[in-house]
Amino acid sequence: MSELQIGFLVYPGVIQLDVMGAFQVLSFPACTQVHLIWKTLNPIVSNEGLTIAPTVTLSTCPPLDVICVPGGGIGQIEMMKDPEILNFLRQQSKSTQFVTSVCTGSMILAAAGLLQGYQATCHWAFRDQLAMLGVEVLPQRVVIDRNRVTGAGVTSGIDFGLTLLGLLFDEEMAQITQLMMEYAPVPPFNAGTPETASKEVVASLLQFGQPLIDTFLTQTRETAQKFNLNVDSEGALLLEQ
Amino acid sequence: MSELQIGFLVYPGVIQLDVMGAFQVLSFPACTQVHLIWKTLNPIVSNEGLTIAPTVTLSTCPPLDVICVPGGGIGQIEMMKDPEILNFLRQQSKSTQFVTSVCTGSMILAAAGLLQGYQATCHWAFRDQLAMLGVEVLPQRVVIDRNRVTGAGVTSGIDFGLTLLGLLFDEEMAQITQLMMEYAPVPPFNAGTPETASKEVVASLLQFGQPLIDTFLTQTRETAQKFNLNVDSEGALLLEQ
Repeated sequence: MSELQIGFLVYPGVIQLDVMGAFQVLSFPACTQVHLIWKTLNPIVSNEGLTIAPTVTLSTCPPLDVICVPGGGIGQIEMMKDPEILNFLRQQSKSTQFVTSVCTGSMILAAAGLLQGYQATCHWAFRDQLAMLGVEVLPQRVVIDRNRVTGAGVTSGIDFGLTLLGLLFDEEMAQITQLMMEYAPVPPFNAGTPETASKEVVASLLQFGQPLIDTFLTQTRETAQKFNLNVDSEGALLLEQ
Repeated sequence: MSELQIGFLVYPGVIQLDVMGAFQVLSFPACTQVHLIWKTLNPIVSNEGLTIAPTVTLSTCPPLDVICVPGGGIGQIEMMKDPEILNFLRQQSKSTQFVTSVCTGSMILAAAGLLQGYQATCHWAFRDQLAMLGVEVLPQRVVIDRNRVTGAGVTSGIDFGLTLLGLLFDEEMAQITQLMMEYAPVPPFNAGTPETASKEVVASLLQFGQPLIDTFLTQTRETAQKFNLNVDSEGALLLEQ
């Protein structure tokens, strides 16, 4: 079998675990080749301060079987309005087997016009913003709609990766990978979603994250306008009829 | 509050998600500084082909509050017999608040003499080898014994990281981090342990992994001999009375 070409977009401010959870899964089969794609080969710095070395550039990236876009912190804003990046995603997506994302990476896919008319998911704190971009958002951890496969927040990249591996190969390959990674999670707390976390925990995180959410919202409105999507003053989506 | 100094040993052949799961957790609080430690600042390549840039060397690493040793593929063998690395771990461990590991990193801690007399855990496929090094192995995902905190295989680094964050700060900080990472896992299969995976899946992975397990076993026997631990021909542990 020729190698399956899988590419993750990386960029300054990317959330490293959005990439690395799925990277670990998808790089396990001997017949996959996983690329980290950026404009240059110069190392970029993640949202957490991790240095990530791209392995191919936009121009040297081979035609991909899977393109995956991870989410980011404030650095993601630049990706949502960068014509070079959005055009790269559109071009690759014409021939890939799967167009995918983890976390708020789905907002970049939507900014490229690649998720409108599809069901998708996103980090819980940004699902309303993904909906503002004309995407049918499902509150699930992994959403498959035709050849679009999207994951929810950060750690969902592992669930996403295993699901995708099952689609690319078969369930046995995905299960062998899961066993290798000993993925039998036992979270020490039950605070992984706003529905299960305490009010105090949700409030603390939202207070911390509000500046980021607000900055994203400004960009989301601008992107929505490009698609002639009406967004009212409350941020709710009024789809053009 | 002065910054909490947290250091991960990295090395050629390290399993990247052993590091990156816990890295994502432990780098979230504003008051932690997370280091990636190696002999030089030259990038190293993980078991999966990821380039990782160390941030400090053995000699420039500050006194740590937490030292964490991740597991590796074949590259781990070198760490288990490298006096410079083992000595660094022993020196740092004298003053750290917590001595920790993810996956087979506990075998490196044991090779440094830092887990004998403690309860600890390890990737499921190597628990018998960790026991051969004189460690009381518990088949748990995270084990806390005094100031030793160890995680099981690869993805357990997330459970480990959240548990440790709860110990370093409080449960609320750990829960806020869990919510940010949307850690409410939904594995698409139930194959994360040999007990829950099908016999075929276990057999396939063990067949694939047997050369690595055998190579580890040779090193484990050598390390056990250094500690005057008797290991019989079947590999079972006969602790010196």
